[in-house]
Amino acid sequence: MSHPVLDVIHARRSIRRYRPELPPETLLRTVLEAGRAAPSGGNSQSCHFLVIRSAAVLSRLRALVEACFASMEAGPDTYRSLRSSITLSKRGGYDFTLGAPVLVVAANQRGYGNALADTACALENMMLAAQALGLGSCWINQLHWLDDAPPVRAYLEALGLDPGETVCGGLALGWPDQSPAPIEHTGNRVDWIDADVELPG
Amino acid sequence: MSHPVLDVIHARRSIRRYRPELPPETLLRTVLEAGRAAPSGGNSQSCHFLVIRSAAVLSRLRALVEACFASMEAGPDTYRSLRSSITLSKRGGYDFTLGAPVLVVAANQRGYGNALADTACALENMMLAAQALGLGSCWINQLHWLDDAPPVRAYLEALGLDPGETVCGGLALGWPDQSPAPIEHTGNRVDWIDADVELPG
Repeated sequence: MSHPVLDVIHARRSIRRYRPELPPETLLRTVLEAGRAAPSGGNSQSCHFLVIRSAAVLSRLRALVEACFASMEAGPDTYRSLRSSITLSKRGGYDFTLGAPVLVVAANQRGYGNALADTACALENMMLAAQALGLGSCWINQLHWLDDAPPVRAYLEALGLDPGETVCGGLALGWPDQSPAPIEHTGNRVDWIDADVELPG
Repeated sequence: MSHPVLDVIHARRSIRRYRPELPPETLLRTVLEAGRAAPSGGNSQSCHFLVIRSAAVLSRLRALVEACFASMEAGPDTYRSLRSSITLSKRGGYDFTLGAPVLVVAANQRGYGNALADTACALENMMLAAQALGLGSCWINQLHWLDDAPPVRAYLEALGLDPGETVCGGLALGWPDQSPAPIEHTGNRVDWIDADVELPG
């Protein structure tokens, strides 16, 4: 089976180094339109994207995020990536945006059961559109983890996040400054159910 | 901007009527491989897909799901789609699989913070791969809602779901028996942040 969609799906990698230049407006809009076209529960279309391409805003957000993480303590059950954010922030100079010139903050309605699922579908569409256009992207979870951290939330609300919205994820976006090789997908197990089984009990 | 990936993203619709024939093995495997290639938090690749293409299993699952919903009562705050499942199940003859010959049950580790996000990215990849191959698909949430309903869980575990896994979503899959027109995406708001703002307080 060959199709450009499959090629893009299999070639996409999370990009963790970016060139500093802003990608052209038309490419960014194309990526965002791809996100907006994702399916949503009951066709609610209630995602909300803040596309931050102001260097001043990104710098301020980085500082706020670093300060929040630096004030946290990792416990034995802390998720590995969150632990890494805390450790790097305490050390100083932590950049959760991976140096990307654009950060998409992806939010949805608090209390809406499909908020995370709908937003993830939109972000996946954006990652694939970015790959198709030669851009790089990486899912950014830090603002989701800090959704209720007062200084970060106050700033995001000043930027346009609604108080009734929850940050479900984010996306670093820009021209890639690395070309990571495809990775093997040995996990994500698939079982084929072609015959019925005995019910227990 | 034109690219086959963008065309597929914008042409995809949720398909709610299917032809009864099973799509060829090679197409189904291609769809599943697209899902497996989705990004995951810390590259955990912990999704688990049960691909049900046994008519007997689908029939039994439909009956179990209908019985569960029929025993539930919708309250004033019940999500619209869940309310519809309950109403239709009480009436009898409810088919949550939309008549599709294939149902993908998509699960992930309980307690893993990115379970829903990772699984949604994988399902979005599958929906796009299906569209690219001429197949139709629709996100199916009923088994997610019934994740802890004992009769449904017991059956899914008999089919291969691990007790430590939670059903995050699902996918109806097959040859489409309808050609819905593209829909407008007027929601999913995008705000462009190109300058800093005053911090409140």
